[in-house]
Amino acid sequence: MSLDSAPAEAGSPAGPVLAPGSTLGILGGGQLGRMIAVAAARLGLHVHVYCPDPLSPAFEVATAHTVAAYEDEAALQAFAAAVDVVTYEFENVPERTAAVLAAAVPVRPGPRSLAICQDRLSEKTFLSGLGIPVAAFAAVDSAEDLKAAAVRIGLPAVLKTRRMGYDGKGQTIIREGFDAGAAFAAIGAKPAILEAFVPFVLECSIVLARGLDGTVVPFDVAENRHEHHILKYTTVPATVSAATAAAAREIGTKVAAALGHVGTLAVELFLVRDADGERLVANEIAPRVHNSGHWTQDAAETCQFEQHVRAVAGWPLGRAGLIAPVEMENLIGDDAGRWSAILAEPGAHLHLYGKAEARPGRKMGHVNRLNPPPRG
Amino acid sequence: MSLDSAPAEAGSPAGPVLAPGSTLGILGGGQLGRMIAVAAARLGLHVHVYCPDPLSPAFEVATAHTVAAYEDEAALQAFAAAVDVVTYEFENVPERTAAVLAAAVPVRPGPRSLAICQDRLSEKTFLSGLGIPVAAFAAVDSAEDLKAAAVRIGLPAVLKTRRMGYDGKGQTIIREGFDAGAAFAAIGAKPAILEAFVPFVLECSIVLARGLDGTVVPFDVAENRHEHHILKYTTVPATVSAATAAAAREIGTKVAAALGHVGTLAVELFLVRDADGERLVANEIAPRVHNSGHWTQDAAETCQFEQHVRAVAGWPLGRAGLIAPVEMENLIGDDAGRWSAILAEPGAHLHLYGKAEARPGRKMGHVNRLNPPPRG
Repeated sequence: MSLDSAPAEAGSPAGPVLAPGSTLGILGGGQLGRMIAVAAARLGLHVHVYCPDPLSPAFEVATAHTVAAYEDEAALQAFAAAVDVVTYEFENVPERTAAVLAAAVPVRPGPRSLAICQDRLSEKTFLSGLGIPVAAFAAVDSAEDLKAAAVRIGLPAVLKTRRMGYDGKGQTIIREGFDAGAAFAAIGAKPAILEAFVPFVLECSIVLARGLDGTVVPFDVAENRHEHHILKYTTVPATVSAATAAAAREIGTKVAAALGHVGTLAVELFLVRDADGERLVANEIAPRVHNSGHWTQDAAETCQFEQHVRAVAGWPLGRAGLIAPVEMENLIGDDAGRWSAILAEPGAHLHLYGKAEARPGRKMGHVNRLNPPPRG
Repeated sequence: MSLDSAPAEAGSPAGPVLAPGSTLGILGGGQLGRMIAVAAARLGLHVHVYCPDPLSPAFEVATAHTVAAYEDEAALQAFAAAVDVVTYEFENVPERTAAVLAAAVPVRPGPRSLAICQDRLSEKTFLSGLGIPVAAFAAVDSAEDLKAAAVRIGLPAVLKTRRMGYDGKGQTIIREGFDAGAAFAAIGAKPAILEAFVPFVLECSIVLARGLDGTVVPFDVAENRHEHHILKYTTVPATVSAATAAAAREIGTKVAAALGHVGTLAVELFLVRDADGERLVANEIAPRVHNSGHWTQDAAETCQFEQHVRAVAGWPLGRAGLIAPVEMENLIGDDAGRWSAILAEPGAHLHLYGKAEARPGRKMGHVNRLNPPPRG
């Protein structure tokens, strides 16, 4: 007997269901890929990680790895031939890379999740088209466009490159009296989007998983605090009303369904409070496991990484209930030097990514604190 | 900044404390080594697994691996040079292997844990010397010894090889009218021990971790059910009195301290109920992570694998409280074919070891069911 045969229900209309002993391919070898790989191994899958960086943290916990550029089609084809399904830890997978792989093997989440979420303009247009509130926005392809957009949207506003931005990179704030040429140059004179500034009182996110059969299982809404444009703390439960939490789940579910998404997904949200009460404005979609879902490793019945693996394998999702109130702290740069004190903290769960060098701004690990004391 | 420097408190009298970025060496590449490796990776350690079997499940989640015999001293020396501390997933590490490694690098748990637990006679003598109740026993080195021992201990009794027995292997029951020559031959005519049969009502175990500083953190007592001499179910809480649970913790703590043990350790216990009430009889010690502690992965605040890694790294232990009642079921041989149904069970956490072939009696994985329904 071998586990290498899928059960009778394998013939899903949405594509093949994996059996244990199959191989999951992961594009990207950072900490997200590493944590997906560990979850996959626990479920009896082999893992093959593809990443151009020879020092990728995910290589250490994978059965096999390939060091090659995302444009290396021969390497991509060999990778596709060696795995049963491909997933990714980042949404900026080049379109051609995804197409080469998809010709040979299922890629989950699928092309629509990638295409829409790679581009802030298509993302905002998509959200808006679903009736989900977003900041006012306009496409900016030149300094002239920027001037016109600023008039239309009002200031202050945020100018962002349409592609490849993360952790505040490729962004600049536009205020009264701005120099359009300088601002457009500051973001590299690339196709961009101007977004109205949202006067939010807090940032939160909804992380969920959607299975191959369309089932959606959301986690609890998470409240996020950024420092220097990088996520620093996530706390659950979030300090939002029950109605807002329900609205967040509804937004996440609508987005996942409209993308035909398979896997874990996060929607970052702004909470606005005004005379009319509390409401959410969607900021961006991450069609993948997300930093604001790391708390699920120790405080949810099933973590976001296992849910992602279950989804991309075509398996049923697990329960996602909250086990205990939790605070996730990202360990950025020198923060990781506090590992010894964190290990001695009762109720703290330390996660380190195995990165050798703690450069400023680099995510080195995180800690999940269950039943944390209130933070000032 | 690098994490490769240990903090100021590193100079423990019991030996060096590891820093994240250090390498943990593991002797043995089975599922226990695999789960230790995953726990170590989560804490930012690199892992190097040493095992003669080229298809070792632990290789898949390790940074590096060595395929070599335990008697290959050149390979052992190279391994010792590549790691910062060595631990093991099984107690039958040859004495010479441990000595070669210990000459170059800390081996944790230490030589006393290995020496005593490898030999049923020294183990029973050790337990007895600590005042811990054990079955009446006698050394048996020949058929003649067996006859004399049977008279002294009474029948029925169990004849076991002193070394290398597990899962019921190397054992035979001795009943009235037995043939001493045949019985001694049946266990391979090896140095053996005759143990009185214990009329137990249930089997349980205490799993705990002991840190480099001597701190002991016990898990809840586990109740174990064997089928065909292999552990099949573990349930927690066990159906024992509070006094018995306290006695189990005391036995475990006493054993760990007397061994100078560093790491996770299990003591298997028989529960006897008679006119005097409920009492425990120690059966054997496993100086390592143990199958009856697998439930801790999903139902304890810190799992036995992380506790083991923390201990052998010289780090403080985590909390070990029970999160929810749990039943662990071992998936043996064809049981693993039920993976698809298990994934669909609410509250079930599936763990598979990545073994290709499901031979009868082979441990393929396990499932932890939280808040399980009562089993008949």
